[in-house]
Amino acid sequence: MILDLNGRLIQLTEQIDLDNLTVNVEKLNKGNAQSVYDLMSEKLQSPEFLPRTLYNKFNIEVISTTDGASDSLEYHKQIVDSGWSGKVIPSFRPDAVVSILGENWKYEIIKLSSASGIDVLDYKSYINAIENRRSFFIEMGAVATDQGVFSPNTHELSESEADAIFQRALNGTATANDERAFIGNMLMEMARMSCEDGLVMQIHPGVFRNHNALLFQKFGLDKGGDIPVSTEYTKNLRELLNKYGNNPNFKVIVFTLDETSYSRELAPLAGHYPAMKLGPAWWFNDSIQGMRRFREMTTETAGFYNTVGFNDDTRAFVSIPARHDLARRVDCNFLAQQVSEHIIDIDTAHKLSYELANGLVKKAYNL
Amino acid sequence: MILDLNGRLIQLTEQIDLDNLTVNVEKLNKGNAQSVYDLMSEKLQSPEFLPRTLYNKFNIEVISTTDGASDSLEYHKQIVDSGWSGKVIPSFRPDAVVSILGENWKYEIIKLSSASGIDVLDYKSYINAIENRRSFFIEMGAVATDQGVFSPNTHELSESEADAIFQRALNGTATANDERAFIGNMLMEMARMSCEDGLVMQIHPGVFRNHNALLFQKFGLDKGGDIPVSTEYTKNLRELLNKYGNNPNFKVIVFTLDETSYSRELAPLAGHYPAMKLGPAWWFNDSIQGMRRFREMTTETAGFYNTVGFNDDTRAFVSIPARHDLARRVDCNFLAQQVSEHIIDIDTAHKLSYELANGLVKKAYNL
Amino acid sequence: MILDLNGRLIQLTEQIDLDNLTVNVEKLNKGNAQSVYDLMSEKLQSPEFLPRTLYNKFNIEVISTTDGASDSLEYHKQIVDSGWSGKVIPSFRPDAVVSILGENWKYEIIKLSSASGIDVLDYKSYINAIENRRSFFIEMGAVATDQGVFSPNTHELSESEADAIFQRALNGTATANDERAFIGNMLMEMARMSCEDGLVMQIHPGVFRNHNALLFQKFGLDKGGDIPVSTEYTKNLRELLNKYGNNPNFKVIVFTLDETSYSRELAPLAGHYPAMKLGPAWWFNDSIQGMRRFREMTTETAGFYNTVGFNDDTRAFVSIPARHDLARRVDCNFLAQQVSEHIIDIDTAHKLSYELANGLVKKAYNL
Repeated sequence: MILDLNGRLIQLTEQIDLDNLTVNVEKLNKGNAQSVYDLMSEKLQSPEFLPRTLYNKFNIEVISTTDGASDSLEYHKQIVDSGWSGKVIPSFRPDAVVSILGENWKYEIIKLSSASGIDVLDYKSYINAIENRRSFFIEMGAVATDQGVFSPNTHELSESEADAIFQRALNGTATANDERAFIGNMLMEMARMSCEDGLVMQIHPGVFRNHNALLFQKFGLDKGGDIPVSTEYTKNLRELLNKYGNNPNFKVIVFTLDETSYSRELAPLAGHYPAMKLGPAWWFNDSIQGMRRFREMTTETAGFYNTVGFNDDTRAFVSIPARHDLARRVDCNFLAQQVSEHIIDIDTAHKLSYELANGLVKKAYNL
Repeated sequence: MILDLNGRLIQLTEQIDLDNLTVNVEKLNKGNAQSVYDLMSEKLQSPEFLPRTLYNKFNIEVISTTDGASDSLEYHKQIVDSGWSGKVIPSFRPDAVVSILGENWKYEIIKLSSASGIDVLDYKSYINAIENRRSFFIEMGAVATDQGVFSPNTHELSESEADAIFQRALNGTATANDERAFIGNMLMEMARMSCEDGLVMQIHPGVFRNHNALLFQKFGLDKGGDIPVSTEYTKNLRELLNKYGNNPNFKVIVFTLDETSYSRELAPLAGHYPAMKLGPAWWFNDSIQGMRRFREMTTETAGFYNTVGFNDDTRAFVSIPARHDLARRVDCNFLAQQVSEHIIDIDTAHKLSYELANGLVKKAYNL
Repeated sequence: MILDLNGRLIQLTEQIDLDNLTVNVEKLNKGNAQSVYDLMSEKLQSPEFLPRTLYNKFNIEVISTTDGASDSLEYHKQIVDSGWSGKVIPSFRPDAVVSILGENWKYEIIKLSSASGIDVLDYKSYINAIENRRSFFIEMGAVATDQGVFSPNTHELSESEADAIFQRALNGTATANDERAFIGNMLMEMARMSCEDGLVMQIHPGVFRNHNALLFQKFGLDKGGDIPVSTEYTKNLRELLNKYGNNPNFKVIVFTLDETSYSRELAPLAGHYPAMKLGPAWWFNDSIQGMRRFREMTTETAGFYNTVGFNDDTRAFVSIPARHDLARRVDCNFLAQQVSEHIIDIDTAHKLSYELANGLVKKAYNL
């Protein structure tokens, strides 16, 4: 039984056989809704569903959270200090300090000053503070950054241009164009820092977040209502890829919600620039057809080795085995089709099945 | 034999077996062209091809026409008055009174005044007249409206803004931007009216109509030469969906000619907003692959129940059984694939096959 | 063994059996890299790999080069004068004299004057010179022109507008908008000339060329780094198709790198305008899935007879048989699927398999 907390297709299949996790497979309906709910509540409160128990049962090697630039990472410390053998690492997500028109941006800058111990008064100190926080995240085990941007536009500003925008942001007079330019510049800066400190860069662009204003006002951020928009990569990523795309110290993993960019833009770019890799079909992490289309549209141009395996982004911990199981089945189906059409041989398929499930993701994130 | 009056693929298949309608199945060629033409002419003039006879033979439950805002619907009256048991209902299509730059717009406003009995002198009386006509259409059996717009942009104007544009339109000084803003506002108004009077709203956007100017000058409107354009929904429909998309009295059925919007925009929007449903693959109503792609790209995100069955938009009456036959086969093929892949079970497939052929379209249009 | 010099998927398959060209089929790896390289070098220097020998072994009927407007075509003359029975014809590619912001444009204009014997001083003499060169190319066997444009925008300028831009280009004061307008006008002019002299027009739009500045600076033009961009055809081609699309003397073959335009724009346009044909899946000339998608997305709307067969654009001479072999297999697979689904019968499939491999391309290019 695959439960998707984002309200998408609920899948029922008899094929799931999770060790020790026998699930009562029956269709959800009016008659059994209450008993299924009760069973789930009971299970979630049982010792066998405690997070660390599940972590071991699921045979997880590493989990990465995403955390704001100023996060103290105190719970990561607690995990480390607890002596537990599991690995839970942070990722550096600076969206809140980068989106200069965000409602709480000034408060975020105060938090950034406090967390870094650097008085953030201008663009230069702001960059220093971000570099400082990246160092701290690396100390705490981080291997990657992540940025959720509306557009993947990349364009470097001069320090004086960037500082002028930063000052307008502090004064509350920054415009939408200022924000767009500032974010485009910060993607360049984050890439530069990645070349220096080795954090893998991730970009998740092209979502119209909080599309349903009513839902957002009632329940706040990240409650659904994120709708994809058409996203352009060829022109937008050019400056970043020109400056850093041939740099052997740099890796940038690009995601999309816009399938039309797979074969037209993303696969050619990833096939060309050594530093660029394609993230999996983000919006389709539970979708058989969606994941199949990702492979069909990218493999002939970018190959398998320019993709990064299945880096599941679930917020539902118990969904992890089912999601990975599904993703692996889809990839193996794709490989089987390639074997049956004599495009690859069975030995290559065996090797690739391991790479797509496990090998590539470790290489991509230097794990 | 599937004849497509729009000049697309002509399909010949031995599988069609229409009750009492034995068709001579052979390939069209130079040799038989004249005799096929003669046979068709003869058949069309025979009593068994009279519209009401066909209506019964085709086992049709209801046909809906689309009619201008000021249409007297006299033929609908005649049908009702004739005591015939068939059901032919109108749909309210206000394009001619909404497109303020249309060549005959002022004449359309005069007709609107006359039909509604309301002197249309300003925006307020214009809205009153449209509400009046919607009431009349409802009396005559209408269940839906339809709007063909170039862009699905929705944005409410203040009454004074709308009236200023309306006055410029009357004076012949309205601009292209005025028309765009006016249409965006009228989509909002039509949605509001639908919440009040219960007519299901339909939007058919994204066609460059009368692309071939020569053809248009010689033969007039709707003679082919309608070419799709890329169409954006996420940003354009946001204002309408934010204001009315959670309203239980409201249903909006959105169509597209732009397949790239299926999985990126339309399915996520229909999956999220209770009021929004997806119309079928409009431009591909005779296309096996086109209809298959519609299901493949929308089902995992929007599900089946956010689609509305096959609301064939043919202008060729005799094509109705063949088109529905084809659509049902494609849907059943899709369901069969889902069963064979253990995504749904056979009982669910049986239930869905009925829903896709008959149930959903009746629910969607409150029939 | 399919070698793709553009760095895309390298395919290894045991199915290739090229007459007299026994190739050692084994996977490329560290162990055999040197010996495979040595074998290839040896073969390329052997008499059996001389171009004319291969031409005969490959059973080629005609090869077309693309040549700048001012090219002397001296090597074409040499081939003709040599008395060899093979057919190598030029195509007229005026990009260098049309792109008025090109680095060497003024030098290209000097070359154009010299080649045509017409002093190119203004727009009028420029057009005369181009017409003159087209005549020369036709004398030398050319059947087609080709234009690589960023956008397929077409819009006719008045002679005075065109001349004003031409003068600004000569003075070095032309802007990006000037160039865009000039190219849009030259597509119209080239179409007009094609109606007059019968050369088939080809348009290859939508590539961001030399995306990787570093690569370009080091190695120059056409060394990879060409990345597709989203391309609009419905609005952009309208003026050209309205003026010339119904002209029986005119044929325009349109290519794309943007798959999203297949079913939305290109197939409807080619289905509607008699003069327009679809070129094959240009960027996917070695891609099984890419070629399959081309057929799936275009056939139901444009049919087979509005496509032009497989006009391979390779720059790797020895790849010709493998590429055509692959393209033919993909097309035959597609036909087989249509037969198995009773959409076409086996006789039609046999006829189409010949047309797609040989017949259509000869008709398209008047060979």
